[in-house]
Amino acid sequence: MDERLTQGVHRALAQRPSQLASVFGERRQTWAQLADRIARFGAVLQKLGMQRADRVGMLAINSDRWLDFMFGTWWAGGALNPVNIRWSAAEIAFSLDDCETKLLLVDEKFAPLVPELRARSKSLTTVIYSGEGPAPEGTLSLEALLAETQPVPDVAAGAEDLAGVFYTGGTTGYPKGVMLSHASLLYNGMACLLELPYHDDEVVLASPPLFHQAGMCIVLRCFIRTSLMVIIPNYTPLEIMAAVQKERCTFTLLVPTMIQLVVDHPDVGAYDLSSLTRVLYGASPITDGLLERAFVRLPSVSFIQGYGMTETSGPYTVLPARYHTPEGRRPDRLRSCGRPVHGMDLRVVDPDGNDVPRGTIGEIISRGPALMQGYWKRPEETAAALKGGWMHSGDAGFLDDEGFVFICDRVKDMIVSGGENVYSSEVENAIARHPDVALCAVVGIPSERWGEAVHAIVVRRTGSEISAADLRAFCKTLIAGYKCPGTVDFRESLPLSAAGKPRKDLLREELWKGHTRRVS
Amino acid sequence: MDERLTQGVHRALAQRPSQLASVFGERRQTWAQLADRIARFGAVLQKLGMQRADRVGMLAINSDRWLDFMFGTWWAGGALNPVNIRWSAAEIAFSLDDCETKLLLVDEKFAPLVPELRARSKSLTTVIYSGEGPAPEGTLSLEALLAETQPVPDVAAGAEDLAGVFYTGGTTGYPKGVMLSHASLLYNGMACLLELPYHDDEVVLASPPLFHQAGMCIVLRCFIRTSLMVIIPNYTPLEIMAAVQKERCTFTLLVPTMIQLVVDHPDVGAYDLSSLTRVLYGASPITDGLLERAFVRLPSVSFIQGYGMTETSGPYTVLPARYHTPEGRRPDRLRSCGRPVHGMDLRVVDPDGNDVPRGTIGEIISRGPALMQGYWKRPEETAAALKGGWMHSGDAGFLDDEGFVFICDRVKDMIVSGGENVYSSEVENAIARHPDVALCAVVGIPSERWGEAVHAIVVRRTGSEISAADLRAFCKTLIAGYKCPGTVDFRESLPLSAAGKPRKDLLREELWKGHTRRVS
Repeated sequence: MDERLTQGVHRALAQRPSQLASVFGERRQTWAQLADRIARFGAVLQKLGMQRADRVGMLAINSDRWLDFMFGTWWAGGALNPVNIRWSAAEIAFSLDDCETKLLLVDEKFAPLVPELRARSKSLTTVIYSGEGPAPEGTLSLEALLAETQPVPDVAAGAEDLAGVFYTGGTTGYPKGVMLSHASLLYNGMACLLELPYHDDEVVLASPPLFHQAGMCIVLRCFIRTSLMVIIPNYTPLEIMAAVQKERCTFTLLVPTMIQLVVDHPDVGAYDLSSLTRVLYGASPITDGLLERAFVRLPSVSFIQGYGMTETSGPYTVLPARYHTPEGRRPDRLRSCGRPVHGMDLRVVDPDGNDVPRGTIGEIISRGPALMQGYWKRPEETAAALKGGWMHSGDAGFLDDEGFVFICDRVKDMIVSGGENVYSSEVENAIARHPDVALCAVVGIPSERWGEAVHAIVVRRTGSEISAADLRAFCKTLIAGYKCPGTVDFRESLPLSAAGKPRKDLLREELWKGHTRRVS
Repeated sequence: MDERLTQGVHRALAQRPSQLASVFGERRQTWAQLADRIARFGAVLQKLGMQRADRVGMLAINSDRWLDFMFGTWWAGGALNPVNIRWSAAEIAFSLDDCETKLLLVDEKFAPLVPELRARSKSLTTVIYSGEGPAPEGTLSLEALLAETQPVPDVAAGAEDLAGVFYTGGTTGYPKGVMLSHASLLYNGMACLLELPYHDDEVVLASPPLFHQAGMCIVLRCFIRTSLMVIIPNYTPLEIMAAVQKERCTFTLLVPTMIQLVVDHPDVGAYDLSSLTRVLYGASPITDGLLERAFVRLPSVSFIQGYGMTETSGPYTVLPARYHTPEGRRPDRLRSCGRPVHGMDLRVVDPDGNDVPRGTIGEIISRGPALMQGYWKRPEETAAALKGGWMHSGDAGFLDDEGFVFICDRVKDMIVSGGENVYSSEVENAIARHPDVALCAVVGIPSERWGEAVHAIVVRRTGSEISAADLRAFCKTLIAGYKCPGTVDFRESLPLSAAGKPRKDLLREELWKGHTRRVS
């Protein structure tokens, strides 16, 4: 008998049918009601011609309808293709066509995009409207479809069956579809829960966007533990604080930027956030300063860090709460993203794939039951990423003596100068601390003497006239001399990705014309 | 990448090499030391000719050498065949030969049995002495073998590879070898840990015999969570209390009989047991009265019940602590063994395999990733036990509306009288409450009128002259009339199994001569 993502639905129905499953605004449903919708949505998909492992898309802001989509698709044996809500129509159409998604759910926010998507996408045939009010022309009403359909039995997809194709890596070039199985998603969920248990009465605020694999993991864990999910449409400090207060949420996931927005919000004192006992954060470490303020503003909260990637089915290292408390905190540990969960092996290797000593930086690679099956129809990228059975993260980092993992940079952003590794992120962090700097990016440029030299591209704050020499002198007070930028180029703006990060690939392309760069 | 039972060893070595792994009397070892022994013992087994999936036995009371045995065997790709220390030489030889075990570890307690085992067993070739002092003649010294061997790499057995053959069901006839895989044992461990998390600083007293699958599960979970194991040689109240006090143990597994022996021990007040926060119990429910006394004597302890069988890789239902506390306790709930963990489906079915309504008694069957692969070389028994992919437990019980499981009896011990199901255990419990009763067994006997009739075989306490009519009258004050024994047979003794339970199969054999009994 295989591991199935729908097992949580069966278990909730057998054990807690009348317990509340989800809250979305004024809409509340029990596990029995949710299970009924899931089994009906499975029937709808089968009626619409969905076959085993066919992809079903959803393009919508967060709502409880995501639960129908996720578990109804799995119930009927299909695979998810959640659509990044920040993408352009062209990017969306690309991802739908790339993995041949015929069925798409949209809400009221994205319904206006449907005509353009239909025009651009070859694969899209059927659009289901999951929003409020009547379904727009050219879409089928989810509620009408559910009402006219009888629940079907779970087809019992599981184990190595495809559970979803999650598009990632759109910063440069076209995104790749990460194929995750039932077994890998379930393994990740269970292994993470060993490190950060959901208690029996957990009230989980599913705050980050659910199209993102990290948001989906939160929900998956709720199904494993039959925990109440509170879902908010928008990922904003005010919605988060209001939901925590109203529903007495106990657990949530926030990125450090959002923690900062909550902690420093002028109205934070007006909300009763005392029910919140744990906040998982990820994407970047948390600073000492922010933690200090957080302990004052949110005294009931313990902080836990997770690190992972879509290709590992979600977080696979955890830095537990004890390394964040005033008693257990060590500034060096706080910069770590923790240690691998059970089942996931992690190594740090040089460009030839050999282990480097503890404390030495190399590429972080991982292996275990939570790894992806590969990139959808990209055998070459898959072979490169999964060389030797290990997922090559592209992250440069090191391990300390107790196996704590420290991420330093992206491997491709690392600068090799005179035989020394310089982490562009470390230099950027130093430069960014200067009050006159609005934005900066650090890349390697060709150097006959050093191989690569450290080069900064800086946007000054309005009115500032800071010089390259000033900045170099400032950096020297913070980091070693060889890491400080040899050259500084002041500009009016930087090319940014959709996520708001400088497009260093474009900067390098411009600066390396006529040269060839070896990426370790 | 597959699930491997040795992953905990690798993880401990990477993350906590200098942390204490186990305590046995004065002997303490770190995870690095234990991992070294494991990798050496793997080498020893390979040198001795062990092939992938070959069985390795161990016949010994509890010690830290069980860790070498378990994880060293898995490291080298072998499968465990732990030997029941309560068995006779004939039974042991049977189980060794049945699954062709060539290699056996023995300690000082069982070394004297080796000549007889060699004489009786066809498969046994090599005996390794894991006890203290010099190895007796005809055995190899474990310590000498380890000292002269270099560690080998983990062969990375995992997933559906055979992890062990666990003999069970010796009450009647010869025992059957339950085949469990790496994946099923790991799934069980992880799923149980979701319900009863081992905290980061857990100090686990591995008290029950480690040859038993329930004892082994405790250790497995320690490897999953890198928890400290305290191992004691004998399962007695004094050893348990002394170890808890000395090592500040926080978690253990005890059967209710042992909880009672501790709680009612005259010296319980002399030990500091305040570190103990959780006791998992199993094999039978706990009584209200015992819980009351336990809360007084062991105020720091929360109680948790688990239920399962070797065929399900260990416990698969859990009754959490909250149903035991004075506030959360309901007398009816306390008789439940809890609800299934994630991944395990449970149904209650009639003899034709149809679900019975909630509250109605039938056979308990289960399904999920933790199920056994089958009985070693017993295709017919395997097909019967795993009919339709569900493990047929042989336990009669029912589910309440919230999915709590209640065990009433063994299916084969159930008496069907006049269309009513009578649970022999319920009748036995009633009879046993009479102060003049030393021992009793209740079985069905042939009845022309009722199909079966309720019959009790009773051993009186010395000096008692209680009559059948007295006992029937006493029973009627406790249970419904149709459940009370129609006939009572007073005897001087009852045939008992090795575990001390009345051999109802023998009693029935005698009473049913010339009749055929239908077992539902």
